[in-house]
Amino acid sequence: MELRIHKGSLEEAVSEAASVLGKKTLLPVLNGIKMEVREQGLVLVGSDGELMTKKVIPVQQGGFESMETGACVLPAAFLHDLVKKMPGPIHMMKDGSRMLIESGEVKSSLSALSTDEYPRIPDIESNGSILMDSKDLVELVRQTLFAAAKEGSRPVLTGVHFEFSEDDVQAVATDSHRLAFVRKRLRSGKNHSCTVPMKTLSKLIKLFKNVKGPLRISMTDQLFKVESSESTLVSKLLEGVFPKMEALLPKSSKAELLIDKKRLINSVDRAGLFAKDTSNHQVKLRFSEEKKLNISSFSQQVGTIEENIPLEGVERVSGEGSMDVYVDSQFLSEALKATQGNHIHLFYNGKMSPLVIRSAESDDQVHVISPVRA
Amino acid sequence: MELRIHKGSLEEAVSEAASVLGKKTLLPVLNGIKMEVREQGLVLVGSDGELMTKKVIPVQQGGFESMETGACVLPAAFLHDLVKKMPGPIHMMKDGSRMLIESGEVKSSLSALSTDEYPRIPDIESNGSILMDSKDLVELVRQTLFAAAKEGSRPVLTGVHFEFSEDDVQAVATDSHRLAFVRKRLRSGKNHSCTVPMKTLSKLIKLFKNVKGPLRISMTDQLFKVESSESTLVSKLLEGVFPKMEALLPKSSKAELLIDKKRLINSVDRAGLFAKDTSNHQVKLRFSEEKKLNISSFSQQVGTIEENIPLEGVERVSGEGSMDVYVDSQFLSEALKATQGNHIHLFYNGKMSPLVIRSAESDDQVHVISPVRA
Repeated sequence: MELRIHKGSLEEAVSEAASVLGKKTLLPVLNGIKMEVREQGLVLVGSDGELMTKKVIPVQQGGFESMETGACVLPAAFLHDLVKKMPGPIHMMKDGSRMLIESGEVKSSLSALSTDEYPRIPDIESNGSILMDSKDLVELVRQTLFAAAKEGSRPVLTGVHFEFSEDDVQAVATDSHRLAFVRKRLRSGKNHSCTVPMKTLSKLIKLFKNVKGPLRISMTDQLFKVESSESTLVSKLLEGVFPKMEALLPKSSKAELLIDKKRLINSVDRAGLFAKDTSNHQVKLRFSEEKKLNISSFSQQVGTIEENIPLEGVERVSGEGSMDVYVDSQFLSEALKATQGNHIHLFYNGKMSPLVIRSAESDDQVHVISPVRA
Repeated sequence: MELRIHKGSLEEAVSEAASVLGKKTLLPVLNGIKMEVREQGLVLVGSDGELMTKKVIPVQQGGFESMETGACVLPAAFLHDLVKKMPGPIHMMKDGSRMLIESGEVKSSLSALSTDEYPRIPDIESNGSILMDSKDLVELVRQTLFAAAKEGSRPVLTGVHFEFSEDDVQAVATDSHRLAFVRKRLRSGKNHSCTVPMKTLSKLIKLFKNVKGPLRISMTDQLFKVESSESTLVSKLLEGVFPKMEALLPKSSKAELLIDKKRLINSVDRAGLFAKDTSNHQVKLRFSEEKKLNISSFSQQVGTIEENIPLEGVERVSGEGSMDVYVDSQFLSEALKATQGNHIHLFYNGKMSPLVIRSAESDDQVHVISPVRA
């Protein structure tokens, strides 16, 4: 096994593969990345057992020269730090159980493990894959991921649920106190659904946010795979039945307010300051006749805050004629920040009923937030 | 007590005063900053009991308008976050035990404590102060502070020792394994020495690194004060006798090597990677006839590294004719990085004797590093 490569391209590829590794695992090979020199390219694989990434550097790209094929597992964090500090182009050559690494005057050797015990990237029996623009996929994930459950008794909620149908894809995440829903047009011609773990999706954003063009998505009942021309991400899926989104959406509303999004975000963030010492970060939203939304909060120890923000429009105010509800300021803020466009519609249906937030400019995003008790 | 002020200038001043506060103290007033409206300016004071800062915003600067004089103590972190999130100019008015804070549509109130229990900035009986260029003082601190003891049985070593004499100032720090010494020309006409705590000096760098022009330094036996036109820093001094630097400097040397500083820093940092799992980060420096310095290190678990760096000059090689010494790579790296100029002299005086590093371009900086046992 022998190769030459530019420092920068190796550093980037090692960094990518190393980033999925866990903190420290009991299985020594999982603290390493698998490096394989093929005739046609250099392949780097990182895995935490649940999630794998593969990066390919084709021959002649990034100065890569394949001199002798072979594969081994190298200590990931170490290799990354070392390559970063090397003075220039890198020459690597395997010698028994050591990998010799040279750059300029520097000679180093790292212990190299066999690839026998390294997890293999599972084959996905492809009954056809789906092409999706990378920007759309990354956006879909960014606009929902924050609402997934951080932990909890229902593992299926610790991910984002995707439903691909004939001509769109829907993504939903909920921690059972709030829900984020996004839909994108996509002529996939497939019907398939799956729930992808949070860690995989955070990694997906990092890997593909700067990639331009289409990504290839493949799925089985257990696995989820996303590929660009150079990078592959494969992950296990979450098991369990994801709750139906319709069950969580209120059917009607007593008031519908049109609000400048940025203005509302700023107000909620300010009020949230004073809600830090309540367990649910509660702020109060109040609306009555005068076409203003009043946002307030207080902290027993520190003080109070209150402001009125002008409404751009008020519709369908029913008999009750006013609104008075406590919500978690962090949930509200995150939902607003994930919503596209300059204006949002806020739907109120009573003190104990969830608030619904929709972009005023698109039907493709919905957020639902349960009220908290004052 | 009532004032108006621009959001930006209040935010900056509050941030400065709040930054000296400890994590959480038992004395509630020390979680707050003291705010005082005077006819001529707004004064903000922060203190952790050992260390105080004072910031003055003169009338009409930063939009400050003094409407009614008075003083109180406000919760520091809260006030900072709130001011940062306010939409524009700020109006503050004290009402009993509350401070009302308004900005645009936002109305807030914070609990305000009396200033009775707040530490006072001690008067320094000035028998004349010393003027020193802020750039010089900050440099003096930056080039020595890292070598002070982080903790340990001798509290006096957890600071930097300053000696002002007729026409220079010297700064020394040592944790007893290494030492940093810097001297600057300064016609102060004073003779005075003191040992200033590490936390004070970190704060000094932050406060004054962007200040241009002279700072005023005053000292008593217990206190140290530095002032610019707008900011004041007052600190207690460390007690105890600081060791004499001459006792730590080797009197002679067996070899004197002239080396490109950057080249050496890079090599030491690389070798240091492999020294991470030894308790003293040991790397080996070896020099023999061929006009190269060999730097190497190894980690039992991971591997080895070695390189030769060319020497720009070799002098006074005595009988022994070679050098072979183990040092802490972090200590060596920090000393090199703190040294000015492009080249350094490395003085070697035997396997068990401290290494000495001097800038090749100036006599005003010396670093001493004890060898470690292999």
